[in-house]
Amino acid sequence: MEDFGSILIVSGPSGAGKSSLIKAAGEKIGEYYFSISTTTRMPREGERDGVDYHFVDKETFEADIRAGEFLEYAQVHGNYYGTSLKPIREALEAGKLVIFDIDVQGHAIARERMGDLITSVFVTTPTLRELERRLRSRGTDDPEIVRNRIENALIEIEYVSAYDYLIVNDDFEKALDSFVAVAKAARLKRGRKQVLRFINQWREA
Amino acid sequence: MEDFGSILIVSGPSGAGKSSLIKAAGEKIGEYYFSISTTTRMPREGERDGVDYHFVDKETFEADIRAGEFLEYAQVHGNYYGTSLKPIREALEAGKLVIFDIDVQGHAIARERMGDLITSVFVTTPTLRELERRLRSRGTDDPEIVRNRIENALIEIEYVSAYDYLIVNDDFEKALDSFVAVAKAARLKRGRKQVLRFINQWREA
Repeated sequence: MEDFGSILIVSGPSGAGKSSLIKAAGEKIGEYYFSISTTTRMPREGERDGVDYHFVDKETFEADIRAGEFLEYAQVHGNYYGTSLKPIREALEAGKLVIFDIDVQGHAIARERMGDLITSVFVTTPTLRELERRLRSRGTDDPEIVRNRIENALIEIEYVSAYDYLIVNDDFEKALDSFVAVAKAARLKRGRKQVLRFINQWREA
Repeated sequence: MEDFGSILIVSGPSGAGKSSLIKAAGEKIGEYYFSISTTTRMPREGERDGVDYHFVDKETFEADIRAGEFLEYAQVHGNYYGTSLKPIREALEAGKLVIFDIDVQGHAIARERMGDLITSVFVTTPTLRELERRLRSRGTDDPEIVRNRIENALIEIEYVSAYDYLIVNDDFEKALDSFVAVAKAARLKRGRKQVLRFINQWREA
């Protein structure tokens, strides 16, 4: 079968452990392209441009919107966040698994536009109380940002049923094992075009 | 989260290796309930009632149809094949993963009725030629049955895009690794009811 990539979307409240899972999964899931979001918010301490986010100003972001350069974008806490299309297309054409860490709005839009390539998973803490505890103990965000994240989590949790899979990150090793399985499964997803090509080759080879 | 089960549907041509994959996956995917089909066809050599199939006569099967006792049923090669609902319900309520080996028609019906619980995977050989070779080398079926299976495979392959995942069983160890990942992912599927209950508990716990 021709090698064409597929997409894994990871959503869930800040503090649920998405980044830790993706980082820890590392080589266990083979080569993948991690889609870095573009944002107009200010870098937090330690965040680097091109690694954590592409940091751009509002004018640049809005010009890219008009040029159709985003798979999806949204405003959260007054800042733009978006997913640029070009690097994704390139990674898919190279047969890679593309991993996105995007919010529930982004997931809904991506599913509408590239649904046949997508596997999605929602990662959350066992409870809201536990999420609050983790956010507070991180100590990197001021109380207002924590409050914002909690409010956001209360909205995001309503969208769990739009996702293929749910990982409750209680025991990290178990959550990691689940995440690796979902990522490996995501690699087996084939878009409509690839399926048609496969069927033709299957019959005639 | 309350333990409620989920469903993994495995389809694909006879001879593609579905049974071998399910058998080899064994303990790697944890406890599961393997749904045994009910059929009116005659047992083949070595097949046992209650293990390979529930073998019943046509009258019994048709009475169960009228009683709504089947999730799905179909006629293939002049025989009835069906999936009884009761043991599935019990397994789901016990929080188990239920694995079905059913055809593309069965998959379509199951998806309509219990879609929110289902992950599905289509298993096939790399080519039609390879499928023919495997079926002939098994030597358990007479040439007419082999011809029938090939004709069926040519129809079934058209339905690949209705499945969540595609496993091309070329290298068995690779296919097994993929199958285990899909089965583990399937366990993370949550039905609408379970998701609603989870959201409520998540907020209030």
